[in-house]
Amino acid sequence: MSEPAATPAERPRPASHQNLDELAVNVIRGIAMDGPQRANSGHPGTAMALAPLAHVLFSRILRYDPADPSWPDRDRFVLSCGHASILLYTMLHLAGYDLSLEDLKAFRQWGSKTPGHPEVRHTPGVEVTTGPLGQGLGNAVGLALAERFLRSRLGPEVVDHRTFVICSDGDLMEGISHEAASLAGHLGLGRLVAVYDDNHITIDGSTSLAYSDDVPGRFRAYGWHVEELGEMANDLDGLEAALRRAMAVEDRPSLLVLRSHIGWPAPGKTDTAAAHGSPLGEEVVKETKRILGLPPEETFWVPEEVRDLYRGVAARGAAAREAWCSRLSSWRGDRQVWEAHWSGQPLPGFAEALPRFEPGASLATRRAIKACVDATAPMLPGLLAGSADLTENTGVELADAETQSAATPGGRQVHYGIREHAMGAVMNGLALHGGILPVGGTFFVFSDYLRPTLRLAAMSRAKVVHFFTHDSIGLGEDGPTHQPVEHLASLRAIPGLQVVRPADANETAQAWRLAVHSPGPTALVLSRQALPVLPGTLGAPVERGAYVLQDPKDSPPVLVLIGTGSEVQLCLRAAELLASAEPSLAVRVVSMPSWDRFAAQEPAYQAEVLPPELPRLAVEAASPFGWERYADDVLGLDRFGASAPGEVVMARLGFTAEAVAERAQALWARWQEHGGSPSRRTR
Amino acid sequence: MSEPAATPAERPRPASHQNLDELAVNVIRGIAMDGPQRANSGHPGTAMALAPLAHVLFSRILRYDPADPSWPDRDRFVLSCGHASILLYTMLHLAGYDLSLEDLKAFRQWGSKTPGHPEVRHTPGVEVTTGPLGQGLGNAVGLALAERFLRSRLGPEVVDHRTFVICSDGDLMEGISHEAASLAGHLGLGRLVAVYDDNHITIDGSTSLAYSDDVPGRFRAYGWHVEELGEMANDLDGLEAALRRAMAVEDRPSLLVLRSHIGWPAPGKTDTAAAHGSPLGEEVVKETKRILGLPPEETFWVPEEVRDLYRGVAARGAAAREAWCSRLSSWRGDRQVWEAHWSGQPLPGFAEALPRFEPGASLATRRAIKACVDATAPMLPGLLAGSADLTENTGVELADAETQSAATPGGRQVHYGIREHAMGAVMNGLALHGGILPVGGTFFVFSDYLRPTLRLAAMSRAKVVHFFTHDSIGLGEDGPTHQPVEHLASLRAIPGLQVVRPADANETAQAWRLAVHSPGPTALVLSRQALPVLPGTLGAPVERGAYVLQDPKDSPPVLVLIGTGSEVQLCLRAAELLASAEPSLAVRVVSMPSWDRFAAQEPAYQAEVLPPELPRLAVEAASPFGWERYADDVLGLDRFGASAPGEVVMARLGFTAEAVAERAQALWARWQEHGGSPSRRTR
Repeated sequence: MSEPAATPAERPRPASHQNLDELAVNVIRGIAMDGPQRANSGHPGTAMALAPLAHVLFSRILRYDPADPSWPDRDRFVLSCGHASILLYTMLHLAGYDLSLEDLKAFRQWGSKTPGHPEVRHTPGVEVTTGPLGQGLGNAVGLALAERFLRSRLGPEVVDHRTFVICSDGDLMEGISHEAASLAGHLGLGRLVAVYDDNHITIDGSTSLAYSDDVPGRFRAYGWHVEELGEMANDLDGLEAALRRAMAVEDRPSLLVLRSHIGWPAPGKTDTAAAHGSPLGEEVVKETKRILGLPPEETFWVPEEVRDLYRGVAARGAAAREAWCSRLSSWRGDRQVWEAHWSGQPLPGFAEALPRFEPGASLATRRAIKACVDATAPMLPGLLAGSADLTENTGVELADAETQSAATPGGRQVHYGIREHAMGAVMNGLALHGGILPVGGTFFVFSDYLRPTLRLAAMSRAKVVHFFTHDSIGLGEDGPTHQPVEHLASLRAIPGLQVVRPADANETAQAWRLAVHSPGPTALVLSRQALPVLPGTLGAPVERGAYVLQDPKDSPPVLVLIGTGSEVQLCLRAAELLASAEPSLAVRVVSMPSWDRFAAQEPAYQAEVLPPELPRLAVEAASPFGWERYADDVLGLDRFGASAPGEVVMARLGFTAEAVAERAQALWARWQEHGGSPSRRTR
Repeated sequence: MSEPAATPAERPRPASHQNLDELAVNVIRGIAMDGPQRANSGHPGTAMALAPLAHVLFSRILRYDPADPSWPDRDRFVLSCGHASILLYTMLHLAGYDLSLEDLKAFRQWGSKTPGHPEVRHTPGVEVTTGPLGQGLGNAVGLALAERFLRSRLGPEVVDHRTFVICSDGDLMEGISHEAASLAGHLGLGRLVAVYDDNHITIDGSTSLAYSDDVPGRFRAYGWHVEELGEMANDLDGLEAALRRAMAVEDRPSLLVLRSHIGWPAPGKTDTAAAHGSPLGEEVVKETKRILGLPPEETFWVPEEVRDLYRGVAARGAAAREAWCSRLSSWRGDRQVWEAHWSGQPLPGFAEALPRFEPGASLATRRAIKACVDATAPMLPGLLAGSADLTENTGVELADAETQSAATPGGRQVHYGIREHAMGAVMNGLALHGGILPVGGTFFVFSDYLRPTLRLAAMSRAKVVHFFTHDSIGLGEDGPTHQPVEHLASLRAIPGLQVVRPADANETAQAWRLAVHSPGPTALVLSRQALPVLPGTLGAPVERGAYVLQDPKDSPPVLVLIGTGSEVQLCLRAAELLASAEPSLAVRVVSMPSWDRFAAQEPAYQAEVLPPELPRLAVEAASPFGWERYADDVLGLDRFGASAPGEVVMARLGFTAEAVAERAQALWARWQEHGGSPSRRTR
């Protein structure tokens, strides 16, 4: 196939297929046009331009067996520019994954396996969910890191694969690409090969509108191996050779810069933003098929010889997997450890190893979590813990762990650097690779920096565990820029994200247990300041989300105080104050570490904990947003915090036992006045 | 003062002050130690290391008048590593701003002017709120862009200043630094000078744990002028000369890479992470003062000769401002335009120019906002609109506007590139500079990418306007990665952020009016899909947050439907269905474009719109999180969306007039059953 020349008009048109590879590439291009055309929606241009690269990858480079998409030792492929999903779907179909032509025809339709952007766990062969730009590159760094760690831990005879990722201009403009690439360069992830689709076009038009980076220079500054391929988008052998050269560089990640022509060779559309995000139009599709030597009236056309080519590829993949299976059966490693890695379940002894904390002790929940992690790390062979430069501060510092690096690839301690966003994306990649339990730590307020990755973790059901410490104004002097206020509400609103804010060290232990046993992502929201170990929390049913921590001794409760995290102790002290006040008020204290867990309980349990007839006051040093679901009044915070010692900020902003008691008395009075009706109607 | 040598131990100790500058620098170092020591909290090390740079900047380079911190033509200084706040406070004190020694002594205490991290509008002379890393650099790009735009628009005789920013390792590891620096390089912001404090230390220890970037190479790849100063941290004349060389480069932003030694010359602390985030300890402070030739028993010591030095600086600043005032008084530009720029208020005719849309028309609110912006742009001389590569899609494409660039510095259209995070930070800088009304557009789901900047905008009361379009599953085929679900709740939870989701084009016009007249940030949440212009929305009281859009014709309402955005039309159609159902139900339809606006209304108005005695059903194609505040039941979305045509997704996920009507009937039935009590108790 000939190269595109300087301007579209001058480019020679391929009239006939000189060989099978060329035919296959044009068949891919055909479907890349047909999918969006049929859906009347989608992104044909990049898929067309990268068809040769995808063909080379899927027919000559990637090692995979479509019969077993979960084969642990497969190569991983990530399309970071997820909008070009039709390309990935086409390749998965040709490669023999369980994705039919009918599935391709249902592109972007309700209930199809071929949604607008690739979704892991939805379409076989899709490794990670991409679309939000830059995430795929970050995930790929995680996939490559997982491979290196597992190769070191389990041995190269059973873990020995590579990660390939295609990135677009958009991926590389996003800040996360800086963090991820800088980290990959630092870690020297030699098994990572990225191809940059340098097509000079974004949605707004020419990249020159907004973008002047010397990308090769930038990646060299990160310590990557960089090769500028130039005009090689249609040169199959050249692409293969370049990929193999990159694969041979094992001490550094590689970037291949490929000049491509979006939409090529569609007349009037090539090298234009019009080819990016819209179907080309029936006539242009037909004309382009003519140029490509495809039957213009056929859609989703795949000739048998192309199917045969990919049948051969699949057979090679099956053989590779069989060889691996026999290596695994003679593998001399610990089978129980292998299982623990890949099942994501801890080794026996996990529950017993969880620390128990005695009332009277006092420690921050960020300290308690470290004790839990250290005590159970031996049962979690896949544990890979790290922080965005707050390793000691956030409790993710593992006892006796080596730092992850090229020299110590089995090191369980990752220094992510001050790169929260990459940390989140790398953790998602680690989790979706399989074999790894990624734990990451940063200040709760900086969950905002990695928020896009939390959403994708939830959507992908990626089992990652975030330690978000310094969880309220109680952190003190660092002031409002560092004090979370709206963050609890904003995480609770994410579907599928488990959020747990334990009240003390014992609840923290249970929260860690939940995180380790949950199928999806967990956010543990932990205090900077020391908290007393409370009576009644040992073995507390944190899995229920909320439970009765304390009831009045001598009489049934007339009011419920609901607390989370560091405010539960205030509720307990307020209960004492209320009991001895005049008139005395008998109150129940409910600890509610997890809204999502509580919402999943049966109504009977919910009503047992929060009896409908009792007024309820929630206490949480955070935005009251959302608490109306459970409470009639909220002692919360409708403003940003302030800089002062933590206990001063807490007291000044109203979080004292006295203030809780006063507020409870006021609620009680209102309740009596209105004959026991909920407060929304009485406000 | 002599240079630090290769290792701390070998470094010569300054025994006496050879000159006044050296004394001033050491006085700054003294307070940099005393502030954290007294607060028992804070970051002395960087402040000590950068004392010479700060002294050079504040005494020889920056043009400012402490008597008028809001002088429009002052130079802007940003401490992006905001944790070194004691340095900034010390400089502002010496420079003569309204910040006393007593204020310095109250460092990090309740109610002080010297919080843990610098806060704009809180401490005179602080230009932007910094602390969350990387934000200050992004703000600085905005400040420099504001200057260039205003210089072009208003003339160099009245706008002619520079922006200086100090960045740390943490700033440059953060992804936002990539976006901001890449954009600044592309735009050629020559008036921006950044100094990189290359101290090799982060909280976790040596930067070598996580960081191998060739920073100069990276910034050269962005098109910056880069100078590696090496070991020059204590060389005042060298620093001044380097800054002046950078200032002379006017076609590109400049980065000066300064090797510094954190905590120098504190014994045992220099070049250690221990000097970063904790006081040095009484004894070390005294010993260090001895080394520096300061009276070791004195704290917050400022000798008169240093005060004199800065009195001289202030006098020069005052003279510069006076000269500027006289230039302004003879300035031949349009005074009304000048006022509109700096007051942030539109020119006369704004309200009259707002488009009016007639019922029967149908257009997406993202299209309506473009009509509003185009119609009123002539009244908004400070308007600078841009998008993260979705210019046409998000309605920020200005009619007849030039693209902002070095060649067209007066261009009002900014192409931010696929850099949402930088866009948010740059917009904050533009707003806090003064003179500019920054408007930015991206898809609502990508508000996650710039979320840290929304928080800072709210905290800083930066008047920025975000157009967040494609605001629900109604966007269709792009699927769950692009469909916001939790975003409305997560923005509503941010204190001080105005969030408006208009129901149609007329509400959009009112929302634009609110955004333009509000003192702080606004998020406008806009539809991708066309929405009918509804009867009764022309001139609707969007400023009230919610209002009665329609009441039943013949009887008082027995139930209230509350809708926002694209779901208001569903409520209107459901009201019709319910009216003609058997039995007929007379319902009120409330449009509720803004929770924060409604929450600020008087209780009487709230009760008028939402009578306590009526059951209420909220309808919003988003997470129901938080709706219990206003509604007894919510038709919402507790899952991620799906890829299919927008109307299909809406219908499949339950957003049809029929589903609304059914749900209302069910609520009504429950309500009757329980004798009119709110539903939380009946669930």
